Amino acid sequence: MTTGVVLEEAQKVVDVARGKAAEIGVPMNIAVVDAGNNLTAFARMDGAWLGSIDIAQNKAYTARAFDMPTGDLQPLVQPGQPLYGIEASNDGNLIAFPGGIPLERDGEAVGAIGVGGGSVEQDHEVAAAGVAAF
Amino acid sequence: MTTGVVLEEAQKVVDVARGKAAEIGVPMNIAVVDAGNNLTAFARMDGAWLGSIDIAQNKAYTARAFDMPTGDLQPLVQPGQPLYGIEASNDGNLIAFPGGIPLERDGEAVGAIGVGGGSVEQDHEVAAAGVAAF
Amino acid sequence: MTTGVVLEEAQKVVDVARGKAAEIGVPMNIAVVDAGNNLTAFARMDGAWLGSIDIAQNKAYTARAFDMPTGDLQPLVQPGQPLYGIEASNDGNLIAFPGGIPLERDGEAVGAIGVGGGSVEQDHEVAAAGVAAF
Amino acid sequence: MTTGVVLEEAQKVVDVARGKAAEIGVPMNIAVVDAGNNLTAFARMDGAWLGSIDIAQNKAYTARAFDMPTGDLQPLVQPGQPLYGIEASNDGNLIAFPGGIPLERDGEAVGAIGVGGGSVEQDHEVAAAGVAAF
Repeated sequence: MTTGVVLEEAQKVVDVARGKAAEIGVPMNIAVVDAGNNLTAFARMDGAWLGSIDIAQNKAYTARAFDMPTGDLQPLVQPGQPLYGIEASNDGNLIAFPGGIPLERDGEAVGAIGVGGGSVEQDHEVAAAGVAAF
Repeated sequence: MTTGVVLEEAQKVVDVARGKAAEIGVPMNIAVVDAGNNLTAFARMDGAWLGSIDIAQNKAYTARAFDMPTGDLQPLVQPGQPLYGIEASNDGNLIAFPGGIPLERDGEAVGAIGVGGGSVEQDHEVAAAGVAAF
Repeated sequence: MTTGVVLEEAQKVVDVARGKAAEIGVPMNIAVVDAGNNLTAFARMDGAWLGSIDIAQNKAYTARAFDMPTGDLQPLVQPGQPLYGIEASNDGNLIAFPGGIPLERDGEAVGAIGVGGGSVEQDHEVAAAGVAAF
Repeated sequence: MTTGVVLEEAQKVVDVARGKAAEIGVPMNIAVVDAGNNLTAFARMDGAWLGSIDIAQNKAYTARAFDMPTGDLQPLVQPGQPLYGIEASNDGNLIAFPGGIPLERDGEAVGAIGVGGGSVEQDHEVAAAGVAAF
């Protein structure tokens, strides 16, 4: 097993994501979880949506929970699709729309980032910037 | 940063909203939260739906959580739309239909009103009357 | 059955309690529930403890739940006493220390007030002022 | 009303607290909430107790909820004391032992820090170091 995300890395991911959010002009909530899916770093940029404090953390949680971008779950949870209703599990901590992405080392998920505060496209873009810094 | 909603303002917003509800003949539950999304004032008019005591508070919470009228979320949370499933977050406190509106000062959200007890159109109308008094 | 607390009465009880809180110089959270133990009026005075938004409502709930001042429950919930552990019931909404008092009409409980923001003695004093106005 | 804690300040408080934790050789979880008691910054140092991810956040929440160090609540919540049983309120988010301290500006609480991962004395020491940097 490779080494999980450590705080220094998580903080760097958050900082780079903050930079991207500032660049596109949308204040964001940004969370990073480690290999054990436990919160490692979090920042709420001034003026970011209060409702996304929770959602950013849940996106990171979801991305590590299933080792895939949260947007990949979106088609699967629709009515009539295989994972319809999954949000009721995991104590209500799952989010199945874009903004969460796993952090990988040697092809293995060792953490995740979750971002909330803009459109789902903006959230994903900021999360991707954080991932690129890992 | 502008000053958040204070009690005197919140109470005035509730009172004006009550007046509008009385005018249209529908008893309402009316809640106001402050800049930090904490409950500041609440009134349940005699005969208002008991189930909307919670919903009115959640509408105010949601409007401040995302700094937009709760009705704006409605198309976004439908099956196949970007925020489908968001209600599972925020400990079940989100309401994505009309009746919650932010209270703004100098273009910045500093609180919100939430109203429940009638049709969503009536709820929004009463909330809007409260906002106009701010 | 006598008539339960109506909003006009609840609002008057809150207003008088606010006056007493202002008089003793301690900002308070003040809640009133009706005969059905449902929230009817609430006000958070500017600067009142955020943690007592919940507690004031729970004191009102508890006072109507058992038709007695919440302080009367205090000796009963201590280790070794008859109601030890009762706080785990009622979804965590019970508070067994002073600040909640029933509102009675013709000797029958028809609502309650709950106050939080100061010492339990201050909370009780402010609640009592509200009761006296009923 | 003074301005609440902003992210730049919160991050500085976290960083200084991390330095103190490193100095005493105990990895800590460190959280900062803003004036509205919403999470603003969080860091889990490598190897810090997983169980204190939640507790550190709750200590910050509690310190802002009652505008006092969480250790001040400890004698008050013991059996037979005035606030016995209070932990059942606030959705189980209260912690009544040391490690949480308000952040004040001009004598007014505008946020709080919460620390968990060591003895309560160590937690308090690290929190106090963070406060001193504010």
